[in-house]
Amino acid sequence: MESARPAPPRVDGPAARLLIQYDGTDFSGWARQPGRRTVQGELERALAVLLPGDRLTVSVAGRTDAGVHALGQVASYPGEPVRIEGLNALLPDDVSVLSCDPASDGFSARHDATSRAYRYRLLTRRARSPFESRTTLHWPHAVDLQALDACAAALAGTHDFTAFTPTETDHVRFRRDVFVARWERDPAAHHLDFLIEADAFMRTMVRVLVGTMLEVASGRRTSAGFRELLAGRPRAEAGPTAPPHGLSLVGAGYGAQRVIPET
Amino acid sequence: MESARPAPPRVDGPAARLLIQYDGTDFSGWARQPGRRTVQGELERALAVLLPGDRLTVSVAGRTDAGVHALGQVASYPGEPVRIEGLNALLPDDVSVLSCDPASDGFSARHDATSRAYRYRLLTRRARSPFESRTTLHWPHAVDLQALDACAAALAGTHDFTAFTPTETDHVRFRRDVFVARWERDPAAHHLDFLIEADAFMRTMVRVLVGTMLEVASGRRTSAGFRELLAGRPRAEAGPTAPPHGLSLVGAGYGAQRVIPET
Repeated sequence: MESARPAPPRVDGPAARLLIQYDGTDFSGWARQPGRRTVQGELERALAVLLPGDRLTVSVAGRTDAGVHALGQVASYPGEPVRIEGLNALLPDDVSVLSCDPASDGFSARHDATSRAYRYRLLTRRARSPFESRTTLHWPHAVDLQALDACAAALAGTHDFTAFTPTETDHVRFRRDVFVARWERDPAAHHLDFLIEADAFMRTMVRVLVGTMLEVASGRRTSAGFRELLAGRPRAEAGPTAPPHGLSLVGAGYGAQRVIPET
Repeated sequence: MESARPAPPRVDGPAARLLIQYDGTDFSGWARQPGRRTVQGELERALAVLLPGDRLTVSVAGRTDAGVHALGQVASYPGEPVRIEGLNALLPDDVSVLSCDPASDGFSARHDATSRAYRYRLLTRRARSPFESRTTLHWPHAVDLQALDACAAALAGTHDFTAFTPTETDHVRFRRDVFVARWERDPAAHHLDFLIEADAFMRTMVRVLVGTMLEVASGRRTSAGFRELLAGRPRAEAGPTAPPHGLSLVGAGYGAQRVIPET
């Protein structure tokens, strides 16, 4: 989730672009915090070994919260690329750098990103999975798929998402442009995925969207009521914040490139 | 892997059949052992809560070794079925019972199984995966797929697998009937899977097969040499035992039913 805290400034000159996966379970999120195990902290520590000298700061497309995963996180730092084998050998097993390539001068994973895409995954079968307990929300309940589809359809376009982020916030702008939002089923895997791509997200936004839509899916709220929340209603009118472990950052878009194909 | 130790005897009367998944990482295998955390031990402990009275013994299709997983393990016990929600609530998160149904009188998951099917999964991309480190062997090396296919083709039929199980063994019969053996690629997921279904397996058999075939895949051994091992050659002539974490029991067949479809 995007934080309202100031981003590292853009740095001129050579830049490297990283593609990263991590299992967020045992991290206090992306952003470096003193005394906490964070992805940014681990990555900057490993890069400091390979690129001694100036202490570098890594910029990132999507600042994920504690417990949230990444399948295709994009990050950058000022300087030359390093070999991923060397970097991964210095990183813990729950982070993996898939590529590290030269980027255009001054590239910033955060400032240059034009979209972020997230997936929230439900495991809809009756029994939990011993393999997916860290990355899916077990949801062995009846689900009204048509109502979910109606909610997703309402999300496309520009809306005021005040209802979907904590009341205590540093955000100053509550409108976001949603490029894609849909639910996808994989019956063989018993997966029900919510996919969303927008220009940017506020803190816990996807999780409150999912928590609220699950109330629609179980009949405790209507899709028409959900649609009304997109007009800047107060946080108290939306539903609960779904737990972090079902959420993964899928990727980030740059320029006209998008992550989630339109169907 | 099948053990040569005596199986629990068949018990007449009502029986229940379980379908089970487990992440074998933190288990000392399937079979109950004093002082060790085992799947059988956890399952019998949970069943004893729901079915107090006679201490029951669970029979199983495939006795997996420490670190080996199960996607569709079949087990049975004498008595009435229980609700899976109650059973799963008593089991740790790394085991899940998918179904518990009445079976025909005297059903034994072990004695009645006519086949067992295993999958060994390699992750063939350059970088490791933070999500699949427990269930795949990271194999970022060049692989001769044609040579692997030749090995798999040689496996079909009846062979003497003495070369593929430890020299110190309780097994008395070394011939096994292989119904299906093949390598399958999923390029999008960077998976290279070895699938094998046979009437029964000896201890570490699939892992030594894979360890030996990976020597063929990297050119250190020929597929013709691999084929010669299937005629009862000594263990020392085969390759290393691949690590357990890439291996999963996929399922067990009963009667004429098979687990892995022939292509």
